[in-house]
Amino acid sequence: MTSENSPLILRDAHVAIVGLGLMGASLAYDLRGRCRRVTGVVRRAEAIGQALAAGCVDDAVLDGSDVLAEADIIVLAAPVRTILRQIEMFGPLLKPDAILIDLGSTKAEICRTLNALPPHVQAIGGHPMCGKETGGLAAAESGLYRGCTFVLCPLSRTTSEAQALIEEMVSVIGAHGLVLDPARHDLLVAAISHLPYLAACALVGHVRAVAQTDATVWEVAASGFRDSSRVAASDVDMLLDILLTNREAVLAAVDSFMGQLAGLRAALANGDEAGLRAEMAAIADVRRSWKKR
Amino acid sequence: MTSENSPLILRDAHVAIVGLGLMGASLAYDLRGRCRRVTGVVRRAEAIGQALAAGCVDDAVLDGSDVLAEADIIVLAAPVRTILRQIEMFGPLLKPDAILIDLGSTKAEICRTLNALPPHVQAIGGHPMCGKETGGLAAAESGLYRGCTFVLCPLSRTTSEAQALIEEMVSVIGAHGLVLDPARHDLLVAAISHLPYLAACALVGHVRAVAQTDATVWEVAASGFRDSSRVAASDVDMLLDILLTNREAVLAAVDSFMGQLAGLRAALANGDEAGLRAEMAAIADVRRSWKKR
Repeated sequence: MTSENSPLILRDAHVAIVGLGLMGASLAYDLRGRCRRVTGVVRRAEAIGQALAAGCVDDAVLDGSDVLAEADIIVLAAPVRTILRQIEMFGPLLKPDAILIDLGSTKAEICRTLNALPPHVQAIGGHPMCGKETGGLAAAESGLYRGCTFVLCPLSRTTSEAQALIEEMVSVIGAHGLVLDPARHDLLVAAISHLPYLAACALVGHVRAVAQTDATVWEVAASGFRDSSRVAASDVDMLLDILLTNREAVLAAVDSFMGQLAGLRAALANGDEAGLRAEMAAIADVRRSWKKR
Repeated sequence: MTSENSPLILRDAHVAIVGLGLMGASLAYDLRGRCRRVTGVVRRAEAIGQALAAGCVDDAVLDGSDVLAEADIIVLAAPVRTILRQIEMFGPLLKPDAILIDLGSTKAEICRTLNALPPHVQAIGGHPMCGKETGGLAAAESGLYRGCTFVLCPLSRTTSEAQALIEEMVSVIGAHGLVLDPARHDLLVAAISHLPYLAACALVGHVRAVAQTDATVWEVAASGFRDSSRVAASDVDMLLDILLTNREAVLAAVDSFMGQLAGLRAALANGDEAGLRAEMAAIADVRRSWKKR
């Protein structure tokens, strides 16, 4: 699968980004000027003017078929189930050796679908571990990817040249690539992202129930609640796709979490002060030893 | 119980703060210069020099009996069960009409203990809804209380003059007072503070379990996990006292939370996409409509 020409470098690549929401537009900001051209492919006519006014892309189009047939790197930046449809729709349009990468939050189902693409298309799964709970072009910003872990799931058919070009792109935006098997990725993000989302939802659900008899609870809530529940405000379409395409891992994570919580509850209910203290201290140590920017 | 003299105002008050950790020292910073004198009462000899060097107090002492007999306002800033012991130890030393207030995170047991003080002592329960997960004098800062809700639990025996002076203190540090019954306070903070702490602990507990077979999970964890789990690093002594003195409300909150999570889990397990989406959207709306500085 290696090309006879010298391998493409990012500076010479035409990058098409399908979807200019938070992730797609932030990527566009960081790639513009670092590659030959950045084209946004959008669904709504107004988004063209908005993207040009924001300055994140060199150009933007509504019907992407010409651009998709011409681009060297095609980035799918949408909720997971939209990406699954886009892979099937757009994959056959791509030119030989074009590289298709997605930014979807779960990887097993996406990589299965990428694997079914025509053999002339290069493909690799991607998942940058960054974001915010507010989506959309307006929330996009240069530097969003800086310092983040960018998971890459190459297929067995992905060439080393294709992977090297994507790794260059990851490096240019300040992220560090981490190659993971799709199933392993999905298990890990169930623990650190999908479970926290559901726990935050249950937390807000409980406070909502308390508020039904005493709305003062909202006045008393402070920074602890704010941070613990922040991700419950995440985009519902995005999260629904995540949960539905990572169901088994998420259910297992919820069960393990419930077991952890039941253990803490039992120690408290039984007045096992020594046991409760030991577990709280161990957990606080684990959390403190996880250093984060 | 009203005094024959004109009521004391904050500017003329000598304030003794027992405990110069995060909450006590931050309060000292904000009160110094706004009242006659701020004295810190500390347990360790080194803390005297540290407090003076930090500049949060006018003076600091190790054995507080003289100061406690002389102060107009005595603030107890310690974990809840330490406060319970201090009320019984220090209460009888206070001069007539001195006002004892605590900053403890649960209020029912503390207010019961305050109620048993000799009748010449004024007392009121307090709980400022602010803080950080890092404690100690070094983490203390001027402005910590600004904008926060400061719950006050006056006893039936608390005079309006005593309450007014404490409300002036709350106002001077930029907080807004909120009078609540102790049991009601404890129920509300179980929902927005104690439950989030236990949920964060269970979250870290699950990730710790995943890390035992795949430590890469720590590398993938990002801002969602960081915020959701932040309070799991809270001071263990403080949180243990909170849980043990608010056990019934905390256990009930955990059960309600588990019910909420089980509902979300069931919708996902059953592939009830419409039901899951509706609940996620409702929860996201609730969380977004809670505006916070």
